[in-house]
Amino acid sequence: MKRHLVFLAILLFIFSGSLCFAQTNQPVKEDFKPATSNQPGKEYPMVNSEGRVRVSILAPVAQKVQLDISAVKYDLIKDENGVWTGESEPQDEGFHYYQLWIDGAAVPDPNSLYFYGASRWGSGIEIPAHDQEFYELKDVPHGQISEQLYFSKSNNGMRRCFVYTPPDYNKDTEKRYPVLYLQHGGGEDETGWPNQGRTNLIMDNLIADGKAKPFIIVMDNGSWRMPGQDRPPRPGDRSAGTWPPAGWADGFKKTMIEDIIPMIDENYRTIADQQHRGMAGLSMGGMQTRVITLANPKVFSYVGLFSGGSITMDDINNSPNFKEKVKLVFVSYGSRELENGKTRFGGNPEADTEALKKIGINTHYYVSPLTAHEWQSWRRSLHKFAQLLFKD
Amino acid sequence: MKRHLVFLAILLFIFSGSLCFAQTNQPVKEDFKPATSNQPGKEYPMVNSEGRVRVSILAPVAQKVQLDISAVKYDLIKDENGVWTGESEPQDEGFHYYQLWIDGAAVPDPNSLYFYGASRWGSGIEIPAHDQEFYELKDVPHGQISEQLYFSKSNNGMRRCFVYTPPDYNKDTEKRYPVLYLQHGGGEDETGWPNQGRTNLIMDNLIADGKAKPFIIVMDNGSWRMPGQDRPPRPGDRSAGTWPPAGWADGFKKTMIEDIIPMIDENYRTIADQQHRGMAGLSMGGMQTRVITLANPKVFSYVGLFSGGSITMDDINNSPNFKEKVKLVFVSYGSRELENGKTRFGGNPEADTEALKKIGINTHYYVSPLTAHEWQSWRRSLHKFAQLLFKD
Repeated sequence: MKRHLVFLAILLFIFSGSLCFAQTNQPVKEDFKPATSNQPGKEYPMVNSEGRVRVSILAPVAQKVQLDISAVKYDLIKDENGVWTGESEPQDEGFHYYQLWIDGAAVPDPNSLYFYGASRWGSGIEIPAHDQEFYELKDVPHGQISEQLYFSKSNNGMRRCFVYTPPDYNKDTEKRYPVLYLQHGGGEDETGWPNQGRTNLIMDNLIADGKAKPFIIVMDNGSWRMPGQDRPPRPGDRSAGTWPPAGWADGFKKTMIEDIIPMIDENYRTIADQQHRGMAGLSMGGMQTRVITLANPKVFSYVGLFSGGSITMDDINNSPNFKEKVKLVFVSYGSRELENGKTRFGGNPEADTEALKKIGINTHYYVSPLTAHEWQSWRRSLHKFAQLLFKD
Repeated sequence: MKRHLVFLAILLFIFSGSLCFAQTNQPVKEDFKPATSNQPGKEYPMVNSEGRVRVSILAPVAQKVQLDISAVKYDLIKDENGVWTGESEPQDEGFHYYQLWIDGAAVPDPNSLYFYGASRWGSGIEIPAHDQEFYELKDVPHGQISEQLYFSKSNNGMRRCFVYTPPDYNKDTEKRYPVLYLQHGGGEDETGWPNQGRTNLIMDNLIADGKAKPFIIVMDNGSWRMPGQDRPPRPGDRSAGTWPPAGWADGFKKTMIEDIIPMIDENYRTIADQQHRGMAGLSMGGMQTRVITLANPKVFSYVGLFSGGSITMDDINNSPNFKEKVKLVFVSYGSRELENGKTRFGGNPEADTEALKKIGINTHYYVSPLTAHEWQSWRRSLHKFAQLLFKD
């Protein structure tokens, strides 16, 4: 047994050595271009055709400057003018949060646009994707994203959501529309789907191509804190007991049912019934969607869980009316979140999907190729999911 | 004469000495509170009752960290944990851009919200104001701010504006509204009035109090570059010849008249005539408003110039129809922008106002107390101006 362990250690050592070798000796392709997520007129950060991110910042007195992206820190190199430059390993296609470290201070890159994620406004970058056409800004009819402020009784305070209305909403003021309630993940907020998610561009392009019915999308703030903690729940919290803890989604469920839906039905031209209402979310928002729709099958017809669990036969058996009332269950993950079909949350989404199909529930399962627990998986999920909604 | 100069020099020396004395020895009031413009959950930056800004950042390896606000850099002091902290002199009431310097790198404060100004997304801070009630978020009926994407023929590309619609816009889908076109300043963009300007809150509060008629506000991007330069015009450019240079506002004038107004009239329930259309702007946006409305008195009835010049008798004489067609001219400045009634641009807004009044033009002049060329002057200007609009 000991011999095996030694052998394994040697193998790991060789493997890690070869990884280092690959990292340091592989030539970096010099076809960098400014990222589309840069501030106006900024040359850096840049991205090359391999998906490497190159940043650059003037910091003449600094001793150490690093690029911090996808949980890896890369040392930058200083030139004779005090400008630090360097690049990362290739990144997945799509959107990534990142930051700079300057002599021990974690700061946003002054050249990038800023996004709310990881519980802070900070830098983000777009890596060009082979399929980016579906979320690009084009000369097609555009809907609006509106900021909606409202008083919430259940929170006894003002709240904010963003509402996407489709291109013809302002033109035909008689027409009424179905509604999708679409939630962000942990450490994000109501700006996630409008900014990182590109919700409006995905929908405008789908509607222009005749691939999706026009519908309203409501993006609210589902942030929720672990009792006694100042952050949303994380998978690691499981070690503290059952996870998610019992009743964890109740606060947002109350807000959704008692405040958000009535406010939207009062202020927008919705078709205010179960057949024309859906809910979806990513990660924490998917877990909220699961809990809220299982508890309210008479409120929602369409259910989307993006990297946020799946619905099991146990769930169905414990949710009266779900099987009869719900028209569609959509479950998705990024391929890098899965190992032998299982997720890091322990579920088996494909097996769950097959079980639901067998009892006659209209269930769809989608895996985003070569992406992880990140926005490209969720953009693609929305793109697939939206084409299935409100069609009958 | 020489004796007088020596005397003056001595006086100045004493005065500057006493200023230094006051700065270093005046005790800082220890009643700092987190700024309302902080990111969620962030303790710093803080502001005290004198309007001093205190920032704090962990930068254990840094040698020098500074707070840079209102064109002054303040050294921070490092504690035993590597946390740098320090504060500024008292700031004017209202909103200010700022940044941090870490070992020679200019970066946003990771704790603040970010705003577009000074040609970059960066940190901003709210200093509590004695009159802040007029732009506070309250439980009153709220309008929406919508992001509107559109194709512009005159620019041959996609553009973006934000549109404020009043609280009852979505409720009564028959009603039509007047429109104000409201422009930002140099180095800012279409996000300035929605974010720093708090346009929606100012309007929602005024409408709730019955002090303003409900109207639509369109906030577009008037950015314009000096030929051959990569930045908007600045007063210093006068040294290069006449300023603003001839024809400098023509690009945005064309976009406004040929693209923006028709697009808004097509997509929103406007009253699409001269009597129900106004234009206003701050600084560069005021200068654009002046040029565009003088050239188009048959398009606009209401004119607002905030820290952006005034309309002279020469202007009136050179603009056929202006006197007959325009219902209101509103001119404003921050008190700190004026010296003996004159502005740093050389104009005399009060004298110009009086001259226009004498020939029967409905002209208003407003000076924002104890503010400079900054957002608090412009929030107050909008607050005054909005109460005068579309009332007959």
